[in-house]
Amino acid sequence: MSDYDLVLKNGLVVMGEAVVAADVGVMGGKIAGIAHHLHGTEEIDCQGHIVTPGAVDVHVHLQYPIGPLTTGDDFFTGTRAAALGGTTTIIDFVEARPQQPLLDALHERHMLAAERAVIDYGFHMTITPTDIPKLDQVPAIVAAGCPSFKHYMAYSFRLHDGELLQSFQAIRRAGGLPIVHAENWDVIQALVRQNLAAGRTEPRWHPRSRPALMEGEAAGRVINLAALAETPVYIFHVSCQAVVERIAAARAQGQPVYGETCPQYLLLDDSLFEQPGVAGALPICSPPLRPRSEQAHLWAALARGDLQVISTDHCPFWLADKAAALEDFSRIPGGVPSIESRFALAYTFGVGAGRLSLSQWVARCCTTPAQLMGLTHKGQIAVGYDADLVVFDPQWPVTLSTETLHENVDWTLYAGRQLTGWPRHTLSRGRWLVRDGAFVGRPGQGQFVCRHF
Amino acid sequence: MSDYDLVLKNGLVVMGEAVVAADVGVMGGKIAGIAHHLHGTEEIDCQGHIVTPGAVDVHVHLQYPIGPLTTGDDFFTGTRAAALGGTTTIIDFVEARPQQPLLDALHERHMLAAERAVIDYGFHMTITPTDIPKLDQVPAIVAAGCPSFKHYMAYSFRLHDGELLQSFQAIRRAGGLPIVHAENWDVIQALVRQNLAAGRTEPRWHPRSRPALMEGEAAGRVINLAALAETPVYIFHVSCQAVVERIAAARAQGQPVYGETCPQYLLLDDSLFEQPGVAGALPICSPPLRPRSEQAHLWAALARGDLQVISTDHCPFWLADKAAALEDFSRIPGGVPSIESRFALAYTFGVGAGRLSLSQWVARCCTTPAQLMGLTHKGQIAVGYDADLVVFDPQWPVTLSTETLHENVDWTLYAGRQLTGWPRHTLSRGRWLVRDGAFVGRPGQGQFVCRHF
Amino acid sequence: MSDYDLVLKNGLVVMGEAVVAADVGVMGGKIAGIAHHLHGTEEIDCQGHIVTPGAVDVHVHLQYPIGPLTTGDDFFTGTRAAALGGTTTIIDFVEARPQQPLLDALHERHMLAAERAVIDYGFHMTITPTDIPKLDQVPAIVAAGCPSFKHYMAYSFRLHDGELLQSFQAIRRAGGLPIVHAENWDVIQALVRQNLAAGRTEPRWHPRSRPALMEGEAAGRVINLAALAETPVYIFHVSCQAVVERIAAARAQGQPVYGETCPQYLLLDDSLFEQPGVAGALPICSPPLRPRSEQAHLWAALARGDLQVISTDHCPFWLADKAAALEDFSRIPGGVPSIESRFALAYTFGVGAGRLSLSQWVARCCTTPAQLMGLTHKGQIAVGYDADLVVFDPQWPVTLSTETLHENVDWTLYAGRQLTGWPRHTLSRGRWLVRDGAFVGRPGQGQFVCRHF
Amino acid sequence: MSDYDLVLKNGLVVMGEAVVAADVGVMGGKIAGIAHHLHGTEEIDCQGHIVTPGAVDVHVHLQYPIGPLTTGDDFFTGTRAAALGGTTTIIDFVEARPQQPLLDALHERHMLAAERAVIDYGFHMTITPTDIPKLDQVPAIVAAGCPSFKHYMAYSFRLHDGELLQSFQAIRRAGGLPIVHAENWDVIQALVRQNLAAGRTEPRWHPRSRPALMEGEAAGRVINLAALAETPVYIFHVSCQAVVERIAAARAQGQPVYGETCPQYLLLDDSLFEQPGVAGALPICSPPLRPRSEQAHLWAALARGDLQVISTDHCPFWLADKAAALEDFSRIPGGVPSIESRFALAYTFGVGAGRLSLSQWVARCCTTPAQLMGLTHKGQIAVGYDADLVVFDPQWPVTLSTETLHENVDWTLYAGRQLTGWPRHTLSRGRWLVRDGAFVGRPGQGQFVCRHF
Repeated sequence: MSDYDLVLKNGLVVMGEAVVAADVGVMGGKIAGIAHHLHGTEEIDCQGHIVTPGAVDVHVHLQYPIGPLTTGDDFFTGTRAAALGGTTTIIDFVEARPQQPLLDALHERHMLAAERAVIDYGFHMTITPTDIPKLDQVPAIVAAGCPSFKHYMAYSFRLHDGELLQSFQAIRRAGGLPIVHAENWDVIQALVRQNLAAGRTEPRWHPRSRPALMEGEAAGRVINLAALAETPVYIFHVSCQAVVERIAAARAQGQPVYGETCPQYLLLDDSLFEQPGVAGALPICSPPLRPRSEQAHLWAALARGDLQVISTDHCPFWLADKAAALEDFSRIPGGVPSIESRFALAYTFGVGAGRLSLSQWVARCCTTPAQLMGLTHKGQIAVGYDADLVVFDPQWPVTLSTETLHENVDWTLYAGRQLTGWPRHTLSRGRWLVRDGAFVGRPGQGQFVCRHF
Repeated sequence: MSDYDLVLKNGLVVMGEAVVAADVGVMGGKIAGIAHHLHGTEEIDCQGHIVTPGAVDVHVHLQYPIGPLTTGDDFFTGTRAAALGGTTTIIDFVEARPQQPLLDALHERHMLAAERAVIDYGFHMTITPTDIPKLDQVPAIVAAGCPSFKHYMAYSFRLHDGELLQSFQAIRRAGGLPIVHAENWDVIQALVRQNLAAGRTEPRWHPRSRPALMEGEAAGRVINLAALAETPVYIFHVSCQAVVERIAAARAQGQPVYGETCPQYLLLDDSLFEQPGVAGALPICSPPLRPRSEQAHLWAALARGDLQVISTDHCPFWLADKAAALEDFSRIPGGVPSIESRFALAYTFGVGAGRLSLSQWVARCCTTPAQLMGLTHKGQIAVGYDADLVVFDPQWPVTLSTETLHENVDWTLYAGRQLTGWPRHTLSRGRWLVRDGAFVGRPGQGQFVCRHF
Repeated sequence: MSDYDLVLKNGLVVMGEAVVAADVGVMGGKIAGIAHHLHGTEEIDCQGHIVTPGAVDVHVHLQYPIGPLTTGDDFFTGTRAAALGGTTTIIDFVEARPQQPLLDALHERHMLAAERAVIDYGFHMTITPTDIPKLDQVPAIVAAGCPSFKHYMAYSFRLHDGELLQSFQAIRRAGGLPIVHAENWDVIQALVRQNLAAGRTEPRWHPRSRPALMEGEAAGRVINLAALAETPVYIFHVSCQAVVERIAAARAQGQPVYGETCPQYLLLDDSLFEQPGVAGALPICSPPLRPRSEQAHLWAALARGDLQVISTDHCPFWLADKAAALEDFSRIPGGVPSIESRFALAYTFGVGAGRLSLSQWVARCCTTPAQLMGLTHKGQIAVGYDADLVVFDPQWPVTLSTETLHENVDWTLYAGRQLTGWPRHTLSRGRWLVRDGAFVGRPGQGQFVCRHF
Repeated sequence: MSDYDLVLKNGLVVMGEAVVAADVGVMGGKIAGIAHHLHGTEEIDCQGHIVTPGAVDVHVHLQYPIGPLTTGDDFFTGTRAAALGGTTTIIDFVEARPQQPLLDALHERHMLAAERAVIDYGFHMTITPTDIPKLDQVPAIVAAGCPSFKHYMAYSFRLHDGELLQSFQAIRRAGGLPIVHAENWDVIQALVRQNLAAGRTEPRWHPRSRPALMEGEAAGRVINLAALAETPVYIFHVSCQAVVERIAAARAQGQPVYGETCPQYLLLDDSLFEQPGVAGALPICSPPLRPRSEQAHLWAALARGDLQVISTDHCPFWLADKAAALEDFSRIPGGVPSIESRFALAYTFGVGAGRLSLSQWVARCCTTPAQLMGLTHKGQIAVGYDADLVVFDPQWPVTLSTETLHENVDWTLYAGRQLTGWPRHTLSRGRWLVRDGAFVGRPGQGQFVCRHF
């Protein structure tokens, strides 16, 4: 007689600060039991493996249009790669057209994802200048399960401080969470113009046009604006200590400020921009990769909790798209891929290298992102939670390359990196997505997750 | 057919950041299952109740001799009161006599507790000046399951900075954890002498002789000494922002520094010393109660994690003992009781007042103290962990008084405080200690816990 | 036989940190001797008086047009009032029209002042958005003796951060000094709109629309921009600790950042905006008056040198002009007068109240402003320096009112303030401007001062 | 007809922030006139030279006994060397014997100096543990013109924190100034013992036994104690940023804390201790020389005013005395000489290297030490001040060596250093001490200076 649909037997289960040998029983798509000696219709031996919650990536760009280009990964290839890497929930973005009601835009984007996604997904609603008149629609978006709102301080569609304030106020009234890409666009534009005017067009001028000092300034400004609006705030893709310091200082004052970083900032540095040809263009993303010395600051901030989340900002453009704009670094489409490798990179270079404990690894990649983003039944192994589960083999040796990875893009910045540890099985709501490293899911299997705080 | 010895059914189970409706199954004294629909030989309906790990109090003084006095609670009455309040593990103290080997002292103290304790217990080894020559015995004490070492910077048996450094170094080499009572004894002595010489003998001169500024100074000094010895350090009974600031600053630099506070600092203030007669003497403890304005700082530090633990420093002397020294505040025996009420006080004034979430309450009272002190199978509801469990009734109205409390002392500073929420049942290693608010355990039932990091 | 044209005999002479009894001899418009027993064609007994350098006010607006209005004081009435208050040098502003070369604008403004000014004067060149294309003219302006450049972060003609950066870079290359009015205009506009839309139109909404937090933010941003441009920077009219903190922190890191404050921030507070009718409108200036608690922070910053200068931001509009816009606080012309009373206010409430020493008073009102602004032979009593001198009577009781003051405006915020101490005589380049409290100078007597660093 | 006894003609006179071409006239031992075209009985052409106040060295040890040893320089040789280097006032130390009244000790030491000193002098009264019962004598010492009190936190005669507090309180009541040698003696002793026990006896273990971290800790503790006693405090010989940070933070809070550093910390580093033989022992002083990276922090702190004074801590023991204890670094007598070269070292490596302005050089070496120590008519060129004057030749090339220097000790750490700039003439109270680089004074010419605040 089987009590459960499926039992993961004898794994090392990461449950908050506890790491225990136990069986995990799944029934009806939910985690239904954590115990010894469970029986299931299907039983998987997890001896020697680590059982974690499915990883949560709250910062991805799939089928993401920038001008004439679209990111290589669509909601199928991107979520398939995610699943193969142990990620079972993503949060992507919605952007409304100037006259389009926000809810329509959400619906449109939702439909796009619904037919292709293999894992669960949600969306951040982007607030651009043309959305400021629509701020009265914010409560409806929150009610629709989309309570987090992205604000750009960079690019042509960036918000000015007054717009940020208005949006923060509207979001606070609706009980939502503002998120910010914090850079100082005015300064960046001035430096870009100066560099281009001086014939400094190569990718190496990208980081020199976006100083860490001003990323810190912008983050500090956002923190002040959030204080003024009396709202929590979440800062995307922190690349440097100049931001960490400001987040830490605000938190020490009791202000609810959160920050994430990404594998590219933890593991790569700005020397990559010095590479000749397209190799120097591939790593272009914003904020840019920083000097190697910043990495230790970011790892330390993750360990002590001044940064709370590792996400990817996965945004893969083709090598040809990067190459096409090589004569002007400012026109090279920005973004780097890591939707598949994030969880394992954080294991090898975090846990394996002694920078994070097993519990911290799961907290930063699964639990805290789920909590901060209102994914109320995800990110933890707890009874009643969605049976989004990963069986992680800590011994599995993987050498990263475009061959081993399934991201739909013809390059990776991690080529040649040797990892020890990779997801063997991935389950979403109790269904098999990845079995022994092979994808067994199907498009459309993923569901929209109604998030709320 | 029963799978479990005991099942707590349908409670709201606090598991790290997750708070879920589930059954908790106990077998062989361990938590053996967390699931739905569990069956047990015994089943307890916990509908409407919160199921938490047994609380952990890492700072208590039972049968504690100071000169001719001994604290009112012995290992039986004290642990019984603890159990009635939901605490299932305490850590008390060992002090060796000048010539006594540390291990002998541990054994002696252990024997004293073994025959009386009703809950599990451990000891911090106190390092006094006469123990400095015995620092080579530190590894043996760590190996004996007693890896945390108390250091006083106050009182006649306080250590000087060089002794602190030596002890920290020895403990670091042995893989232990130094703990410190941080005050500046030289300054306190000078101020006490000045006050007494000026005829300022009343209890109100107690806080005026132990300035918060110098508690901050002492904590800062300990943090520097720990940095020099390259060891983590844990600071006892933080009473003020002057200490919190220094802990937070060190943590922001990545230094592993931890701090606890106690109910008396969170809920009481120094106006109590102004009361006439023995009423002004009862609250005497060190560090002293501080101005009310400090309380918000302490709560905020708990919420954001710059303080990690709520313990009690339970140290109850009889009213007559306090009264006997009323003519000289410096001779009044210090210490206040709260071993029974801590967990519920933190619930009503923390969770109930919106200062802490349910998860933070459990983290600060159960999980983090267990983790920091090497109680490896305690403080969490996780499969394989000791079945130290509390069924907490969040609706139960309790008015604190010496009648409702079971601490063996004839006064409480919380008389008249109205709480909403109190432990209904307490289990230790799966055995009933408290059932429907009534003590059902027996002396000697508690076990020594071998702690290690 | 007379060695000197004029000798100030037996005064208490403030020379840097020294305050000595001495004679000061003037010859050919210069300070030619500081000694005992000097003889002059004219000799003035200064027994019991303090001899100081003429005060320097580096922030005034005379004949200053804002839209259809012009400030009440022109270069004659304003400098006459200044002279009566002991100020012998002012720095006013030039603003070029959109197509006008900067040098032409300087010349035009210069001509306006030349015919009327009774004391020496210089100009800060204002850089507005339409001047950004003219940044190649900056070296010519520096060469013309006008090496300081005003930037607004508020009002319609404010610069964006990229423009600030460009301007800072150009000024640094030319060896000039950027000056900034630091507020966050985007945020102010948003709050003003919100307040007006809610019918909150009274003057009391002025300070509520310009939060101190965001003045601090803006100052911090300027400090970061200056660091990026590797230039010193001077921050105008600091009103609050939020700015002081950032200046102090930057200075502690070795960054050359300077700040001034004004009598209105040191002595008045935002309760004035609560007054009914035009009384609430008169104090409107930007940044606004702040809560009284800020004042102690500003005085302390002056004493320890984190603020270096007391100036006035003298900008007097008529009561009728203020009253005309009473129905909309955002349209009330901003600015308050104090060109005449500053030096004496700083004496009574600084020196008299024990907040500043005599030397600090002279440093903040005379010496440091002269130094920072390149007035190389002003602001000190030293041989070879311009004989700009004040004989200050520290016993002279003065009650401030529009009757006692000579500012050309029909109100003052200091009406009824009782001062002890006022300038008895004022000399400019050795010529009498004020004698026994009476003005004896003539229009056009003042000279343009060619400033350089 | 001569108006003055002596006129220094046509020099560049440093008067506070002003540096002007002027004559300086001396009469009756005072500065009597600063002007052009002065006439004197004697006139000295100073064209091309800098005229400064005589330098003030507030930290010297002459005829200083430590155990069986005495420093090489007595009050004659030491003050002669000082005068040759442009120093016209020193402050040395008095230490009372256990039973000796403080005033007797002052008198005794005074007599010793009186017969030999060639420049003016004062004393800091040292408060050792045996002086704590004598604190009621502090007002008498202040009244005797000796208002500054030295406290050691290191060495056998160091004070504990309670004693420091008591002494600070007594000094504050008497209107005096506490001075502190801030190190953590307990920690130093522990580290010394550990190093010696491990056979680490060479001079290189000296800095490793006195960590900068704990010098910072001790200074921070002193600052807290001074806050508690509500007294200003002056910290001797700051060697590192760990102290500078704490001074700067306290000053930013408005606390009156002052700090000095010395040439050895500005110009030398701890690599010197690595030299073989006695060469590694010569630089031993406490606090020790630090890594080279600290130097930039100290210079920057001097420039911005977080350190206020450059003194010497001149304390020369013979090479043979250093060599005699070479087998145990902890027994090597500490102290290095620079009484003669300080002013010129600060010129070449401060002014010449662009780290200090002329005014800052004079402020740090002359004016501020005089002010802070109550030398009310010294340290500035001002009418009525003592005619302590230096004519400094900024072109004079000097290569330092024991041959060029007149300090009575057979070594210098600056051998081979090439300076550009050296005092040509030195006057004390208008009398010639050094003329064209040659000493022309006589023993006993110096006077005790009655200092007061």
